[in-house]
Amino acid sequence: MDNFSFLNPTKIIFGRGTEKNVGEEILNYSKNILLHYGGGSIKKTGLYDRIIKSLDNAGIRYVELSGVKPNPRLSMVYEGIRLCKQEKLDFILAVGGGSTIDSSKAIAMGVLYDGDVWDIYSGKATAESALPVGTVLTIPAAGSESSNSSVITNEDGWYKRGHSSDVIYPRFSILRPELAYTLPKYQVGCGAADILAHLMERYFTNTQHVELTDRLIESTMKTIIHHIPKVLKDPENYDSWAEIMWGGALAHNNLMNTGRVGDWASHNIEHELSGIYDVAHGAGLAVVFPAWMKYVYKHDIKRFCQFATRVWDVEPNFFSPEETALEGISRLERFFSSIGMPVTLAELKVPLDRLEEMADKATNGDKSTLGQFVPLKRADVLSILKLAA
Amino acid sequence: MDNFSFLNPTKIIFGRGTEKNVGEEILNYSKNILLHYGGGSIKKTGLYDRIIKSLDNAGIRYVELSGVKPNPRLSMVYEGIRLCKQEKLDFILAVGGGSTIDSSKAIAMGVLYDGDVWDIYSGKATAESALPVGTVLTIPAAGSESSNSSVITNEDGWYKRGHSSDVIYPRFSILRPELAYTLPKYQVGCGAADILAHLMERYFTNTQHVELTDRLIESTMKTIIHHIPKVLKDPENYDSWAEIMWGGALAHNNLMNTGRVGDWASHNIEHELSGIYDVAHGAGLAVVFPAWMKYVYKHDIKRFCQFATRVWDVEPNFFSPEETALEGISRLERFFSSIGMPVTLAELKVPLDRLEEMADKATNGDKSTLGQFVPLKRADVLSILKLAA
Repeated sequence: MDNFSFLNPTKIIFGRGTEKNVGEEILNYSKNILLHYGGGSIKKTGLYDRIIKSLDNAGIRYVELSGVKPNPRLSMVYEGIRLCKQEKLDFILAVGGGSTIDSSKAIAMGVLYDGDVWDIYSGKATAESALPVGTVLTIPAAGSESSNSSVITNEDGWYKRGHSSDVIYPRFSILRPELAYTLPKYQVGCGAADILAHLMERYFTNTQHVELTDRLIESTMKTIIHHIPKVLKDPENYDSWAEIMWGGALAHNNLMNTGRVGDWASHNIEHELSGIYDVAHGAGLAVVFPAWMKYVYKHDIKRFCQFATRVWDVEPNFFSPEETALEGISRLERFFSSIGMPVTLAELKVPLDRLEEMADKATNGDKSTLGQFVPLKRADVLSILKLAA
Repeated sequence: MDNFSFLNPTKIIFGRGTEKNVGEEILNYSKNILLHYGGGSIKKTGLYDRIIKSLDNAGIRYVELSGVKPNPRLSMVYEGIRLCKQEKLDFILAVGGGSTIDSSKAIAMGVLYDGDVWDIYSGKATAESALPVGTVLTIPAAGSESSNSSVITNEDGWYKRGHSSDVIYPRFSILRPELAYTLPKYQVGCGAADILAHLMERYFTNTQHVELTDRLIESTMKTIIHHIPKVLKDPENYDSWAEIMWGGALAHNNLMNTGRVGDWASHNIEHELSGIYDVAHGAGLAVVFPAWMKYVYKHDIKRFCQFATRVWDVEPNFFSPEETALEGISRLERFFSSIGMPVTLAELKVPLDRLEEMADKATNGDKSTLGQFVPLKRADVLSILKLAA
């Protein structure tokens, strides 16, 4: 186990009806806020009205910025920064999923950064401070509700880049499982793939002696795998949504990578996919992750055997560990298919003519490597993309 | 799953050599501190010198209060409060295990409470604020390093009472696994029993649909059960101590009871034991917990079967779930014996002539019940104590 320091400062407010207190919660920070959200779904479901009522009751002035898209765009972040400065807003309430929350975090850093906020995402600068952000989560997926990270897409070149900084942990996140009842099935599948990917990125590590965190990750994976099919069949299954929503937040709150180094190559490869083709992040991960596994599993067959037996209940074949390892990967793939996720680029409707460009962008023209478990060069990324074809 | 709110604000600083930064960490809060610790062991091991050096380097003035005993006493808490007020100290550094940390938390509340600090423990008052506390942990056991609770013994009547309040979460806790190398084997066993008890108190619940937290608890138990025998054989096994130390902190940091109601009857019964006989808390728990289980398992045989199969790898007997449940309890008992813990009052050298008095004190003369899984009356507590004979 490596040395580490851990503190997750996000207050989780979890359960039935919890969004009605959002106004009171915000009063701990501000009376002038940016209300940031996506499309019309929160208006259709009545969530918007309940939040406005709570803000009004608390006497909070809000300025709205809506229209956040999946793979949230830099241009909207600029607009949010401008609005906050012009209207003197010093708190951002994100109502939505990972895209809205990530966009809010970017705005929160941008308002207090004296320069172009993209500098922070492109690695030219670090964020020293940020406005406080609170969230009301509508889809368990990205884990941004309890994470210190944010991913933004720059339309100028379609670069999708992430940044992590402790200043952007949300101050609070309201997790109300009922809000997931109305999600389309495809989004549920994408969310599941994203949550599982966050866990697997942490799981596949070269750090030795990490039994406790291994088991915590396996536990969370098993829970997600058990409950996603249930909500696909019965979208108003509160109990299963509660497991998934809490699991999704814990998957990405940094507890499960304490004392270990994760991989994150699959996420980065997927960023190139969704950066160019604007596919759903979770769907892209469902395609990339199994391909990555098939490419790297020989690096540590024992770890892949543990994954297969503990997470997927594969019977261990001690005479052929490789068979055990491959069966685990196969079950992951079959699980993704069973929940409506693509597992090939073809199913994702991504053509094969820009794979070289993606491998280039992901490795900065072969000048850097990707991932920690097995550091990947440009040729490796290309091979993985071809395996995913 | 029940509604919940969760935030654990203790910064965990974990790993090799981490105590050398304690001075710098304290500078975030204070330059005038109470240095609180137990006996001479921290001087023998050199830990005391390293801490003093770090405090000196940071220019921190410290006043010492040493001599904390297991089952920490109210009289020393009074002394600490007096010292802090007299010397104008506004931070408490606890160097030690649960007793020293609990004593520090009591002092921290007492300094800012306008009355007798025992009011808080006896339930007459609540703590509105407390001085900040930091810890350097020397034994994985009580979990006080990441908890909001504290247990103090009042020598006037030998009442042992606990109090929980978010104001006493430590601001930081330094967890350096090497500090456990020199622990006597009996203390290692007591620590293990305490950690497992914290997990089991949370595990045995009537709250339904708590799969994720069930699995997180089971994971932590399995890790502790796997590694305690290793450190008993090889006291300088860093990797195993690291698993145990992180597991011990997570066992009691309130993550694992999110959305569920725990029991805590066994802890309360044990408090009567160690309140009167001054036995080690962990040893008392090793005696009380299996007896409690034998008394209550019929209340939810399915949960005890899950405990037996998932934590203890008992093969499920679907034709006799009761057999499966009892085998789990038996394996817990055998595990305690194998790590040198007593499992009967006789082994603990507690005579049987004051069981009635303990049952009386635990239930406030049969005026209140104990525990949530099965609320126990005076007669139940007496039966459990007799089962433990």
